[in-house]
Amino acid sequence: MIGCVVDGCPPRLALSETDIQPWLDRRRPGQSRFTTQRQEPDQVRILSGVFEGQTTGTPIALVIENIDQRSRDYSDIAARFRPGHADIAYELKYGIRDYRGGGRSSARETAMRVAAGAVARKVLGAIRIRGALVAMGPHTIDRARWDWDAVAENPFFCPDPVAAKEWEALLSEVRKQGSSLGAVIEVQADFVPPGLGAPVYAKLDADIAAALMSINAVKGVEVGDGFAAASLRGEANADEMRMDDGVVAFQSNHAGGVLGGISTGQPVVARFAVKPTSSILSPRLTVDRAGQETEIVTKGRHDPCVGIRAVPVGEAMLACVLADHLLRHRAQNPDAPQTARLPRN
Amino acid sequence: MIGCVVDGCPPRLALSETDIQPWLDRRRPGQSRFTTQRQEPDQVRILSGVFEGQTTGTPIALVIENIDQRSRDYSDIAARFRPGHADIAYELKYGIRDYRGGGRSSARETAMRVAAGAVARKVLGAIRIRGALVAMGPHTIDRARWDWDAVAENPFFCPDPVAAKEWEALLSEVRKQGSSLGAVIEVQADFVPPGLGAPVYAKLDADIAAALMSINAVKGVEVGDGFAAASLRGEANADEMRMDDGVVAFQSNHAGGVLGGISTGQPVVARFAVKPTSSILSPRLTVDRAGQETEIVTKGRHDPCVGIRAVPVGEAMLACVLADHLLRHRAQNPDAPQTARLPRN
Amino acid sequence: MIGCVVDGCPPRLALSETDIQPWLDRRRPGQSRFTTQRQEPDQVRILSGVFEGQTTGTPIALVIENIDQRSRDYSDIAARFRPGHADIAYELKYGIRDYRGGGRSSARETAMRVAAGAVARKVLGAIRIRGALVAMGPHTIDRARWDWDAVAENPFFCPDPVAAKEWEALLSEVRKQGSSLGAVIEVQADFVPPGLGAPVYAKLDADIAAALMSINAVKGVEVGDGFAAASLRGEANADEMRMDDGVVAFQSNHAGGVLGGISTGQPVVARFAVKPTSSILSPRLTVDRAGQETEIVTKGRHDPCVGIRAVPVGEAMLACVLADHLLRHRAQNPDAPQTARLPRN
Amino acid sequence: MIGCVVDGCPPRLALSETDIQPWLDRRRPGQSRFTTQRQEPDQVRILSGVFEGQTTGTPIALVIENIDQRSRDYSDIAARFRPGHADIAYELKYGIRDYRGGGRSSARETAMRVAAGAVARKVLGAIRIRGALVAMGPHTIDRARWDWDAVAENPFFCPDPVAAKEWEALLSEVRKQGSSLGAVIEVQADFVPPGLGAPVYAKLDADIAAALMSINAVKGVEVGDGFAAASLRGEANADEMRMDDGVVAFQSNHAGGVLGGISTGQPVVARFAVKPTSSILSPRLTVDRAGQETEIVTKGRHDPCVGIRAVPVGEAMLACVLADHLLRHRAQNPDAPQTARLPRN
Repeated sequence: MIGCVVDGCPPRLALSETDIQPWLDRRRPGQSRFTTQRQEPDQVRILSGVFEGQTTGTPIALVIENIDQRSRDYSDIAARFRPGHADIAYELKYGIRDYRGGGRSSARETAMRVAAGAVARKVLGAIRIRGALVAMGPHTIDRARWDWDAVAENPFFCPDPVAAKEWEALLSEVRKQGSSLGAVIEVQADFVPPGLGAPVYAKLDADIAAALMSINAVKGVEVGDGFAAASLRGEANADEMRMDDGVVAFQSNHAGGVLGGISTGQPVVARFAVKPTSSILSPRLTVDRAGQETEIVTKGRHDPCVGIRAVPVGEAMLACVLADHLLRHRAQNPDAPQTARLPRN
Repeated sequence: MIGCVVDGCPPRLALSETDIQPWLDRRRPGQSRFTTQRQEPDQVRILSGVFEGQTTGTPIALVIENIDQRSRDYSDIAARFRPGHADIAYELKYGIRDYRGGGRSSARETAMRVAAGAVARKVLGAIRIRGALVAMGPHTIDRARWDWDAVAENPFFCPDPVAAKEWEALLSEVRKQGSSLGAVIEVQADFVPPGLGAPVYAKLDADIAAALMSINAVKGVEVGDGFAAASLRGEANADEMRMDDGVVAFQSNHAGGVLGGISTGQPVVARFAVKPTSSILSPRLTVDRAGQETEIVTKGRHDPCVGIRAVPVGEAMLACVLADHLLRHRAQNPDAPQTARLPRN
Repeated sequence: MIGCVVDGCPPRLALSETDIQPWLDRRRPGQSRFTTQRQEPDQVRILSGVFEGQTTGTPIALVIENIDQRSRDYSDIAARFRPGHADIAYELKYGIRDYRGGGRSSARETAMRVAAGAVARKVLGAIRIRGALVAMGPHTIDRARWDWDAVAENPFFCPDPVAAKEWEALLSEVRKQGSSLGAVIEVQADFVPPGLGAPVYAKLDADIAAALMSINAVKGVEVGDGFAAASLRGEANADEMRMDDGVVAFQSNHAGGVLGGISTGQPVVARFAVKPTSSILSPRLTVDRAGQETEIVTKGRHDPCVGIRAVPVGEAMLACVLADHLLRHRAQNPDAPQTARLPRN
Repeated sequence: MIGCVVDGCPPRLALSETDIQPWLDRRRPGQSRFTTQRQEPDQVRILSGVFEGQTTGTPIALVIENIDQRSRDYSDIAARFRPGHADIAYELKYGIRDYRGGGRSSARETAMRVAAGAVARKVLGAIRIRGALVAMGPHTIDRARWDWDAVAENPFFCPDPVAAKEWEALLSEVRKQGSSLGAVIEVQADFVPPGLGAPVYAKLDADIAAALMSINAVKGVEVGDGFAAASLRGEANADEMRMDDGVVAFQSNHAGGVLGGISTGQPVVARFAVKPTSSILSPRLTVDRAGQETEIVTKGRHDPCVGIRAVPVGEAMLACVLADHLLRHRAQNPDAPQTARLPRN
């Protein structure tokens, strides 16, 4: 089984497995021909921390039993290291490695992130968190066609219906070749109150960066304009302010909702890059545990673009970070305003 | 004054102010016409944790006194919020704000990061950490011309002497206009032993991402190929392995030295994007504490490209993260190999 | 089920359920007529972190399934608060309370502490940890009769065979009356290397105090002479030093092996006081959730002296604290001596 | 200088040096002939985190400059280890030791605890924290004579005026002999809201135990009846409950205000034992850095009973722990009641 513990959740929130399962189902493999064909129902079970349908304030333990455990032949990967995979790093660090599937370097681990994120969403109340795939391999969406409703209507969580159509053929081809593609995911939180985060330690954007970078296969993270901000001039990058009914109305959101490590009340926007999976059918040069040169081909059922299923994972990580900071902010500033209202008092 | 405390440093390392000062001098303002003309000698003083030239193992307190404290007129920024600056975020979070220079949202805060990084370098021993500016505004270097020696020979920490030459004119113009530019910095650690980091919590790349994103004005972070990895195929992205005298010889370093959150023995490579400073001479629309619409111009002595001085800061943050992980790795795996040697035992 | 996760364990330690089970069996209820007659086999299962009989360095998840779940009638305690029990505190904090047995305030929770302690013992190598009951209610042992071998030969973990004999009749009487007794437990670690702990934060004795005080029903903790030290003069309390074959030979151990928050190489000795359980047959005045005054009698199968089963729990907590500090010490001081050898180098 | 940083303090609390100084003055040496005659004015200075008389929500740095730095002769203690002092532990851990006064093992360090406690008191609002010396050496107070007003009227913080009188002669004699006495201190917090703490990790009593045990020279800690609870029967130990105007009225406070790791709304009561200082005039057997047997006499100006000045330190530590838990409780349970009101909603 896999599991996780969510500690610090406020008491008396309505919570049951049915609040968590839909989010897991979005991440679940085997739902289209573009994700691994492993059949994992990923049925979550709440072991503790909930009583008569409400959180008790004590730790919430969640588990998912493994079902699809056909006895596999691991001889290929037991002794040889898959290039681009964590195998070699574990071997060098620990001198021992559990090469069977489902370990800590498996994408399966991210199921618990999604489950924890479902609890975090309960804590977040009206804060809304959404995500979308904005690039697959070298192919980016046309942001002018962004449609949040489209995200649920294609197997890629793609907000651009035209791109989604094109990606079907593209990814089918990649899959047939036994190859893989990277992806870029954008996650956004709306209705975030100002004040989450802190000036030096526990900056909101630093914690978001760590949370997203900690997802398997992620190699880059950015907030707001991100790397594009580096090529702007100060005039273009600064988000000007007007007032709208007592609330600060930013005229743009280059900052992605975070200034000085603290949320401003604007939508929090982050993106992360997922590398193409290293589990591919082309033979690659590698070495084995004994230090002998060899080759390896990764057979088995793998996602041609693991970035697709990273969309719900990224949403979940953003939810967890925001929930943590919401509680911390409340601890220090219980009477802070819920919106960017001025004057503050 | 500003200060910091470095706890957990191993005892009996040779350490004095002269080990720290050179790194501070690299970050110090007023060294060329391309950085702020404030004169801050940034003279560091060790208050504790060192005895007769050696670390004692107890916390090392470091301070820098403020010198250039000409009495300034803060009336411009006391009540009005600079767009793109943390002012408004602090106001909304805390309902109070120390608007005088040198606070926690000031770039001055990064001096202590550099000082701490100098101590971390002592802990790192033979691990070498270097950094360079690889893009200024929309202008990127030609990586074919990369020359580490060039970095010390121009005021931009630029490894491409040709680009550095071009940037002089460019940045002079930007400075005269009272405008600002963003930048991208690359930091690299060589001779990092394999095994630093952990599989889920405390991933090395997640901690690097948080550390770099926590630097003022940083909006994006990437490790290895970073966002470019998203546009690759799996065949291109996986770093193949051969053996070289008993040690794993990776044939490329798309991973940036980290797989599954753990260092592999390859150079650790990261990049981060710095936005253009919001302190510019063009008037920008803003609001004041009373919620009234107004405009603001940020006068004073500011860096036209704060990214330049972020180079030593990024190096320092990488040093701090690696030093932490070196100690943690040693705690759990005292007999792990210092290189990617196979077989491990 | 109940469970715990042990993270940070060094890799390649031999570990299986049979290393853990004997310690759990010592704590297990139903072994004599002096402990609760609930039958909980407390069979531990390792879910992760062990591969082919060795730790992998990744988190070790341990679980114990609940077996003895006869459907109980909780109507007595669902609405009414047992005096001296955590019921009322949970109610006031969370506004909701899972009144069924086995929750976080149940002594059953301590089974996982014992399981974790068994893993910690593996980390501790040659460090030996033992515990004993030194007082039951007002009856203390005669320390002149201390015999570690006796501890395993009576149902009280009592090192004084004479006292153990007397306690049998005493506790039988208390049990028949449906009453309960408190106890004092002493735990000791031998062969602890000097240097564990730190001067201000993470003092070894402070961490031991927190660990022991965190055990259910513990109200007091002391190290070395503890409260008795307060009535001594400085001449009597200071442990004088001689040399024995290059190693510091302390002439006494009033300090309990810790000076300035750091271990000295002497045996680490601590004691803790367990209050009498509040689950007794005499009716006590109490109130209910609705704020009405009422009475309560706690029926069911309870320990007349919970302190007995706290002996293995206290040992386990000491093992966990020492294991943590051993790793931390190794991180900072990898070449520190294993004994109190002088000169150090 | 010595210093500390208090992070996480809520913003807009009135705070200045005059809020902190009185607490420091209580701990300050040289105020009677019963404390060390060193003259340390212990003048605190706030370096950051306060603006125009109010906390800003950012870290509050506090420093005290050293004044009484007469050049001392440390040759006695540089190479030889004082029995009962941390010297030998530091030497064995670090292999280096700053033997000059005022280091991390000096009682002087506790001045910053008192300063931090003064800030914590601001956070605690109406929660009142007081402390008293309840035993000096083997001499205990008569609790029937307890008078909080008496505490300020004798040089011992003794709540029993009769005992205080007797202790004058006693301690004069001890001081003349160059000897020292231990002490027991009781600290109490009134008007603590219910709900502070947590069930397993972060238990309020465990954190109090760690905080008090971390004070120099403390060897034992207890909450409520503490060790005395071990000799009680369950009937005597359980605090019965009645209602008083909608609020739970406990009929006794054996628990010391904490049940299951969580505050109940009763006064939080803790005690700690301070050993007699090891700085005495009688020669003691010891060894030197070279591993040679020798003797040592500790000359200099020392407190004959360091426990006296530990009273304000213990109060401060209790204040810090409660302030932390108050914020944490507010984070998780923002609408929890401020008193033990039933029904909760």
